[in-house]
Amino acid sequence: MHIVITGAAGFLGQRLVNQLLDRGELNGKAITRLTLIDQVEAPRPEVAGIESDCLALDITVPGVLDPVLQARPDVIYHLAAVVSGAAEEDLDLGMRVNFDATRALLEGCRAHGLAGTRLIMASSVAAYGGDLPEVLDDMTALHPQNSYGTQKAMCELLINDYSRRGLVDGRVLRLPTITIRPGRPNAAASSFASSILREPLNDEEAVCPVPTDLEMFVMSPGKVIEALIHGAEVPRADWAPFRAFMLPGITVTVAEMLEALGEVAGAEAVSRVRHEPDEAITAIVSNWPARFDTAKARRLGFEGDRDLREIIEAFIRERS
Amino acid sequence: MHIVITGAAGFLGQRLVNQLLDRGELNGKAITRLTLIDQVEAPRPEVAGIESDCLALDITVPGVLDPVLQARPDVIYHLAAVVSGAAEEDLDLGMRVNFDATRALLEGCRAHGLAGTRLIMASSVAAYGGDLPEVLDDMTALHPQNSYGTQKAMCELLINDYSRRGLVDGRVLRLPTITIRPGRPNAAASSFASSILREPLNDEEAVCPVPTDLEMFVMSPGKVIEALIHGAEVPRADWAPFRAFMLPGITVTVAEMLEALGEVAGAEAVSRVRHEPDEAITAIVSNWPARFDTAKARRLGFEGDRDLREIIEAFIRERS
Ligand SMILES: NC(=O)c1ccc[n+]([C@@H]2O[C@H](COP(=O)([O-])OP(=O)(O)OC[C@H]3O[C@@H](n4cnc5c(N)ncnc54)[C@H](O)[C@@H]3O)[C@@H](O)[C@H]2O)c1
Ligand SMILES: NC(=O)c1ccc[n+]([C@@H]2O[C@H](COP(=O)([O-])OP(=O)(O)OC[C@H]3O[C@@H](n4cnc5c(N)ncnc54)[C@H](O)[C@@H]3O)[C@@H](O)[C@H]2O)c1
Repeated sequence: MHIVITGAAGFLGQRLVNQLLDRGELNGKAITRLTLIDQVEAPRPEVAGIESDCLALDITVPGVLDPVLQARPDVIYHLAAVVSGAAEEDLDLGMRVNFDATRALLEGCRAHGLAGTRLIMASSVAAYGGDLPEVLDDMTALHPQNSYGTQKAMCELLINDYSRRGLVDGRVLRLPTITIRPGRPNAAASSFASSILREPLNDEEAVCPVPTDLEMFVMSPGKVIEALIHGAEVPRADWAPFRAFMLPGITVTVAEMLEALGEVAGAEAVSRVRHEPDEAITAIVSNWPARFDTAKARRLGFEGDRDLREIIEAFIRERS
Repeated sequence: MHIVITGAAGFLGQRLVNQLLDRGELNGKAITRLTLIDQVEAPRPEVAGIESDCLALDITVPGVLDPVLQARPDVIYHLAAVVSGAAEEDLDLGMRVNFDATRALLEGCRAHGLAGTRLIMASSVAAYGGDLPEVLDDMTALHPQNSYGTQKAMCELLINDYSRRGLVDGRVLRLPTITIRPGRPNAAASSFASSILREPLNDEEAVCPVPTDLEMFVMSPGKVIEALIHGAEVPRADWAPFRAFMLPGITVTVAEMLEALGEVAGAEAVSRVRHEPDEAITAIVSNWPARFDTAKARRLGFEGDRDLREIIEAFIRERS
């Protein structure tokens, strides 16, 4: 089993590599080779029995993936992307990395006859937008209100069409907002969704910029990685007729997040969260859908977190 | 008012040109210039006061539209496309004409600063597919099951994003199945939807390859052209948040079509339709959605046909 990962030096890429190395197998077959691609060279995994290549490549360069595809990988995780803020700021960059590079990857699979290669891509809740219903489901239209979501939605369509034509075995998972991300706060509008839990758990102060009744649709990093792995294991036929759908996150309010924080870490932890309303952030995140009926994902065996407590406890366990 | 039309030599392009010449104005302004683009040179309209250019161009050639965009047209009708059968047969051709050329047109508008230019594109019912609900609405997902529909759906997303960013004023209309098309039967699976009315009205035989309880969502060519014209006249702000939606067709069964034929042209006309079930055609067209709640189109003032009788009578009127 030869697995290629683009964006392998990123947040999800690194966690996925570690999980794959821990398991040693995917879809019942021993992992014998890993090709890790990122513009930043990913750390080389040193595991007996697994041949690893870490390639520092810009996936937007024409033909750059040809030698990799020539080796006929069994599974490709396509995680390289520029995130929402960057894609909004620079339309050309976003189109090139998020869309053109995905199209080139599909064309590469076609050119190398990789009809059976499982290509797993991560899409995003940012692909939704517009006049959304109260509860979204697998047939809710994608009317993205940002270029990142537009590019992801276009990739979904293209991956679906190449897969329908039998040129590759593509699968797209739309990811909920991920919490608790380790590390530091970042510029993402959703940064607080990790901060208000992570910082207090690390005895630090956090700022909550949104009203506590705000709802979000969230998933822990651990469950996202499990979903990426499961995504390579579900049989091909189960993905038709449309090979992209939302993963089963859970709907939570900010108040519930703080309550769960109190249950696990005490009232003092909760008191470290300062409430400083930020209209700009609130305006962005209050447009994100928070309630989904994720029937297709569940039918295909994808699993979400049980509750916030489980998410917080997993973070504490992994940190130590 | 300078209007550019791509695909101007085609079925809808030619009708649109004639309608625009008849009106002499668009959105309250006199039409002073028409630029007709097609790979086949469109017939030159000879109308006093309107400067016309008929350019035989392949819109997939990089930069080919630059001189046209340099002239800063007020309205662009983008109708050039390869239709569903051709796009399914040749993925590269479909991607090039239906998607890449649309993207290049958007990029051209951006490069020439045509933020206020109204760009109207025709999408299709073929963009729908998969596990559709009984009645579709403006929030029904596009899960196309053919490459043509995929390419149209990708164009919708891109036009929406460029318009949201203020780079152009894009508008996309999803067209129902058009009936009654003049001319001869063609290779389209939907050809019968015109044939079973047109041929008997012309005292010819027709074959009906589908069960008479089959439902379709249809619009007359006249109403489609009216919609294209109205599409250039609706104010920009009314199109957000998503600038593509279905036009108000009417839902009809084949039985109702034949009944209306009988009412207008008598039992003898109906008797010219032979029923020869064709499983292949039935399989394709019975997957097409036939019931829509077209709330957005109606809110924006788009109008459909009243009934089949009106459609048939308009065909007879225009023919004579
Ligand atoms: N983390 C989330 O909350 C979230 C949510 C939805 C979707 N996603 C998607 O999941 C995937 C992984 O996300 P992440 O959180 O790990 O992001 P990340 O930014 O940590 O990782 C992306 C990686 O892609 C690499 N990359 C960017 N441009 C490249 C190029 N031209 N060539 C080669 N490598 C390039 C970056 O160097 C980075 O290491 C992305 O596709 C992202 O859009 C993430
Ligand atoms: N007629 C329908 O039932 C219907 C339904 C839904 C959508 N549409 C869309 O409406 C538009 C017009 O449809 P139509 O019925 O008039 O089709 P048509 O085939 O009659 O016209 C399309 C025109 O595009 C031109 N063209 C194709 N490739 C070109 C290229 N590379 N460069 C320049 N010109 C090129 C063709 O020469 C043709 O004249 C198309 O975008 C079509 O997808 C039509």
